[in-house]
Order: sequence, then C-alpha cells, then structure tokens
Amino acid sequence: MSSPNGLICFTNCLLPLEDGGLVEKDLWIDQRRGVILDAQDTFFLRNERPAQTIDLGGNILSPGFLDIQINGAYGFDFSIYEGDDLVYRDGLRHVAEKIVESGVTSYVLPTIVTQEKSLYPKLLSLLRPYSPPSSANILGWHAEGPYLQFAKRGAHAPPFLLTAPEGYKSVEKLYGAENLADAEDWLMNQGVLNEVGVRIITAAPEVEGVMESVSELTKRGIVFSIGHSIATIDLATTAVQNGANLITHLFNAMPQLHHRDPSIIGLLGQVADLSFERPFYEMIVDGIHSHPNSVRLAYSSHPEGCILITDAMKILDPNLHDGVHEWRDGKRFVKEGDKLYLEGTNTLAGSVVTLDKCVRNFSRFTGCSLGEAIKCATYNPAKCLGIENRKGTLRSGADADFVVLDRKGNVLNTWVKGKQVWSKGL
Amino acid sequence: MSSPNGLICFTNCLLPLEDGGLVEKDLWIDQRRGVILDAQDTFFLRNERPAQTIDLGGNILSPGFLDIQINGAYGFDFSIYEGDDLVYRDGLRHVAEKIVESGVTSYVLPTIVTQEKSLYPKLLSLLRPYSPPSSANILGWHAEGPYLQFAKRGAHAPPFLLTAPEGYKSVEKLYGAENLADAEDWLMNQGVLNEVGVRIITAAPEVEGVMESVSELTKRGIVFSIGHSIATIDLATTAVQNGANLITHLFNAMPQLHHRDPSIIGLLGQVADLSFERPFYEMIVDGIHSHPNSVRLAYSSHPEGCILITDAMKILDPNLHDGVHEWRDGKRFVKEGDKLYLEGTNTLAGSVVTLDKCVRNFSRFTGCSLGEAIKCATYNPAKCLGIENRKGTLRSGADADFVVLDRKGNVLNTWVKGKQVWSKGL
Repeated sequence: MSSPNGLICFTNCLLPLEDGGLVEKDLWIDQRRGVILDAQDTFFLRNERPAQTIDLGGNILSPGFLDIQINGAYGFDFSIYEGDDLVYRDGLRHVAEKIVESGVTSYVLPTIVTQEKSLYPKLLSLLRPYSPPSSANILGWHAEGPYLQFAKRGAHAPPFLLTAPEGYKSVEKLYGAENLADAEDWLMNQGVLNEVGVRIITAAPEVEGVMESVSELTKRGIVFSIGHSIATIDLATTAVQNGANLITHLFNAMPQLHHRDPSIIGLLGQVADLSFERPFYEMIVDGIHSHPNSVRLAYSSHPEGCILITDAMKILDPNLHDGVHEWRDGKRFVKEGDKLYLEGTNTLAGSVVTLDKCVRNFSRFTGCSLGEAIKCATYNPAKCLGIENRKGTLRSGADADFVVLDRKGNVLNTWVKGKQVWSKGL
Repeated sequence: MSSPNGLICFTNCLLPLEDGGLVEKDLWIDQRRGVILDAQDTFFLRNERPAQTIDLGGNILSPGFLDIQINGAYGFDFSIYEGDDLVYRDGLRHVAEKIVESGVTSYVLPTIVTQEKSLYPKLLSLLRPYSPPSSANILGWHAEGPYLQFAKRGAHAPPFLLTAPEGYKSVEKLYGAENLADAEDWLMNQGVLNEVGVRIITAAPEVEGVMESVSELTKRGIVFSIGHSIATIDLATTAVQNGANLITHLFNAMPQLHHRDPSIIGLLGQVADLSFERPFYEMIVDGIHSHPNSVRLAYSSHPEGCILITDAMKILDPNLHDGVHEWRDGKRFVKEGDKLYLEGTNTLAGSVVTLDKCVRNFSRFTGCSLGEAIKCATYNPAKCLGIENRKGTLRSGADADFVVLDRKGNVLNTWVKGKQVWSKGL
C-alpha cells in the first residue's frame, strides 16, 4: 500500500462535511506524511498524479472517530496502576491496537476516574507520551474527579472525593503542575498534540473552590466539563460564563430537568449572547443511559453541541459474553448486552457499547442523517478540544485518520496517519 | 370606518406568515362580510378600488390571538354557575368585550375545570352559542377534567375527579351527547364554528377507561389533550397513536423529564413515522410556570407544535392590584405580579398573564423572532383545532380578526370580523 510519491486518491466515496452533510467527492492524502492534501493544489498546481487510487465502492470515508470519555477496554482499566509501568504500558498498547475496530482512531482521552490522590501524578505521567504509528492515538487525559458532588458520585468511591479549598492551586497540586498545560505550551504545541497533559476536567462547580478554578483552567486550554453535579441553572450558567465548555454525560449524574430549575440540562436551552455560548455535551447513546426520546430532545435543542461518547469500562469488548465480571476495589460488574451495572445495585457503571454502535443508534433515535451522527463523533469532539484543524475533520493538513463505513454506518476499515490499521474480515 | 363597497386595504404593514416569517405586504378585507380577500383577485380581476386605505405606519398586522386555555378573566370564572343564567351570560359578555385589549379575538375556549358532575351539561349549554359581533369569539369548550390523575390534580378538587369505566360512553354521559360533536356535524359546520360543543378534553390516559375513549373522541373532531397525568412515555405514545394531538400546559402537572422514562414531555423527542405525529403542546410563558431555558428546550425540540396559552384565572386583569383575592370553595388566591398561587401553599393556580405578554416573553426567552412567537398564538392553535382556514391566519376567506402590534409586540388595536373593537388610548 506504499507508493513512489506517497499520494493516494480515494475515489467513489462519500465524504462527511463539517455541517453534517455527505458529498460524493475524491480525497487525496500524502501517505508518507500521513496527512490530507488539498486536491486542487496537488492535482492542478503540483501537477502530480496519485501513485494509488482506491475505489471505496460508494462507501463513506469519514474522519476517524474521537472518543473523549473512555475508562478502559479489552480488559484494561486506565485508572488502575498495579505498581508495574511495563504492565500498564502493555495495557495501553493493547487497547490502542484493538479499539480501531470500532472506528476510533484517536481513542482519545483515557478518563482518570476518582482514585487515591497519590496515584494521579503517577498515572498521568504514564499516560503522557503515547502516539503509536499503527493504532489509535491518545490525545490527552480526561480527569473525571475527584471534585465531584457526593450526591451524584455514581460509581466513584466516596473516600476519594475532594474539595479544592485553594481553587486552581489545589487542582495544580493534585494533578501536578507538569500535567496541566499552560496557554503558551498549548499554542506552541499545536503540531504535537500529545505534549500537553490534562485536557478535560470533569468537576461539580458547587464543590468548594471548584468555581474559582474554572477560568484559570480554561485559560490554559483545559476543557472544564460540568458533571457529577447538582448545580442550579444559575450556578451552571456562571460556570459557563467563566469558561466551562462541556457537560459530562448529559442526563447521568445530574438533576433531572425540572421546569422551574432546569439545572445543568437547562444550559442547552439558554439563549446565547455575548457573555454566553452554550457548552458541548456528551451523551452515551447505548439506549440504556438515556431514553431515545431524551436523546432527541437534547439534540434538537442544541445540535452543534452534541458529542457521542462510550464512557466504556474495561470490559468493553464486542466479543465478551454476558455475566458477572471483576472490576476493582472488590466490586463486580454485571453485563447484560449493552447494559452494565454494579453487582447488587441498579447503579449504571459506564457502558460496554462501542462508538460506532453509538453513531448508528444516534441516527436511528433522532432521525438525523448518518452524516449528522458522524459529525457528533468527529468534528464536534475535535472542536470542543480546539483541535479541529488536525482531528475529526477532512481539512487539508489534517491527519489522515479515517474510518470507512458502509451506508448503514458499519465499520469496514480503519486508517491511522494514512495507513490501514484494521479491516473487516482480515 | 364603513365604506361604500366595504373594501379596506391595510398598507405599510408587516404580515406574519404561517412559517413564522414577517413580510411587508398589503392586506385587503371586505368589511361587510368580515373576511380577508385575495388582493390579486380583488384588485386585478374584479378591478375594484378600496373605499378606505389604512396606513399602519410599519406596524404588524397579525391574525388575532387564540387562547385555547383560559379559566376566566376580569372577575368572572367560566366554571362557576351560581344558578342565574343571566348573570352567567353577563359574565361571558364582559370577558369577551374586555379581553380584546390583549389581542385575543377568539378568546377561544373557556376551560371547564373539574366541577360537580351535574354542572357540566348546564355550563356547556350556557357556553354554547356565543359569538358577539364586536368582541372576542368563543370557539368551543376546553374540558379540563374530571378524568385527571389524583397525584397531578393541581388546583382541581379531589372529590370531583372521576374514572371512565365505560370508556367513551362514560365521557358522553358526563358531558351530554349533544355537547360532543360527531364527525358529520364537524365537517358540515365548518362555516359555523360555534355549533360544535366540546372542542378539547384534557385527561390522563392512565385513568381507567380514558385510553379507550381517545380514538372515538378524536374521530368526532374533539382534540384529546394529555394532561394532569403521570403517563409513562409508552402510555403517552399509545395515546398519541390513538389520536391524542395536544399536551396540556407542558411541564406543569406531569412528571419531570426523566432521561430513562421521559414521560409526556418525551413525546416532543419522538421520531415521527407513519403511526406517529408529534402532538401540539401548550406552554404558559409567564416566566413563572417554567424557566425560560425549559421553554426554549421544548420549543427547539418541536417548534411546529408550540401553542401559547394564558391558563388565566378570573382575576386576570392587567389593572388588578397584587394581594389576596377570593377564588371559590372558600379558597383564596395570592397574586404577586404575574404569579398566582393558592393561599397557604406553593401550588400554582393558573396564571394572571395576558397572551400578548406571553408572546413577547416567548420571543425574549427563546430568541425566536416576533413572527415566530406570533405563530404560536395564532396559526399553531388554529391548526391544532383544525380551523386554520378560518382563524389564526391571513388566508383569503378567513375571518378578518386582527391584532395590530408594534415592532416590540405591544398591542395597538384589535379588530373582529373587519371592525376595530379596541384601540390603545381610546
């Protein structure tokens, strides 16, 4: 699949646009550099011919999927460190190699769920540099906790929940200053996506000191995501005005939409003005975490903000059988199809759905086109992170990370940096 | 204001379209017949000239507002009959004459709230024939109760709640067969809007026998509205599939939107298909019954279905002072601005907001244009009732009922059947 000048032209395919449309159009890439080219420039100005033309048989050539909330997969839990760096790195590599089968090419941000305080810097340093050439990339880290609301902690362990009495300083102490990007690094390192540390922090704005940290985190290019919270609409609005730009798994671990205090969900209904832009919001569209009609209500109120996530646990593996599985701290999961809960409770504990299935579910639940559903797993998450020039897009200069889907949204093959890394039936 | 050939041409005005737009265009009416004319036909084919041209100074010439849920106003309560027909008719006339100041020209459907069973036929017969020439029209009756859910009864009196063990037969016995239109009457009487009886019934589909009555009521042209109910999403969906076409005061007197069972509110998020068309839904946009963000969430999820209502109580009167007021059954209201609740409780008891204020609030809360807000008080309610050829529209042949609004939505003057019946400052 290599070629003299490294130019590949994909033809007879549908390309998803950033507005959710699908157009029939060729796409050129430079396989050696692993980037997408401007077809106009390449063909007409440089007068080059492709070394290879790939006929996609009318299927969809989508940017690779981004999953910005995932806790583990294929038996490996990103937040469990058992004292051996090698074992941990092996686990990371294993997930990165396997997850491309679900179309995820920047299997984005391993979520650090609430853990023993001392583990944070250790885990974060291990997660730092990992961008293998032929498997999914890590773009940074999503720290879910420990600044969570006790009453909405979900599966997070109570002893590890913290407050941030010194605001941003507390946050810095906990994660380690070296793991929190600052604005300059962020701007200078656009070409090296993995050099920055914590990318997303999920926290409850009502927890002591958290609201005070929002603007400083945001200034540094870190996405502040409201979640595991009982914030009122007024408090949630203030957090957004301070810079919060995301809502963690909308509907779950937050108050229901009460019509007189719509709380966090109510942010989707806010009128945007100079001081307020509506945040992005994650949804786990497994048909279990939220009713299809609720998914559609949210989407129709703020389509540009929708981000599909798996929130997957380590037992995510399309081939795994149903039944009871070990988790951690002596707790066990029960898996029933796409449903996953803590043994002996009704508490949902993340999901076991793959992102490609979420995309198909989403199109079915909302009645939106497949192109619009794809947008929620590509362009929207990339935009939320501010990397929409590099990932989640087919712009020229962006990484040649793709998932080829049939017209029903099933994954046919997956490409990372211009190379095919997985194919159905291979 | 009369004229030889009765032709009036309104000019220099903005006309609201049925899609929510506003266009600068003239409008012709025949004042003698009280109907809107096709300007093209009148001017070019009939070669007629208007006897009168009215320059509206760039203001908005809107169809008159329709309020499909109102319990009373100006001191009169539609559901209280004190044994004297004359007094009752006087009350009706008084409301019809006064309410035009808020732009309401078909002050539509006096709601019969839950009452002593024996009063229904009496009240309905009194409400039947009333279409005065120079004040607002009654289009029929909205029967709110008695088939309501006890747990969501709001201000309705518990002893009067009923079940419908015989389905439609029970409903017929209660309201009186003569007050329930049948399909043939309905079709034949399109020209005489007031000849039909009960137009809307608000009921809880989970109450015994109610679900069984839905399709029969719908066949007769009666709008079945889901309200004061704890129906699950499945039950609510079935009611809509059976013919239910409206949700009574969305958000109020129903479960909150739970993401795993979104209940009645979840109907707004349903994907329409052959067996399912999303119902209309009423909202009381007084800034009290629902948070502005909740209003916007609902509207963005299903804009074509939104109907603004006042749900006004008898003390609705823009000039009334705040404080404690008598209601009925020895109960008393407390009015604080636009807020109205039962003395000694937190139970909201309808509203005291005028419909023109709801239109202005709605535009402000949702960020929609004034034209789109007007649509929710004109075309949408008319369409819900199936009378969009006659009311809530500027189609030729429709009744020349208008409200002239300034560009901020304030009422300047009101017209019924081609005659001005109220003007600001007069």
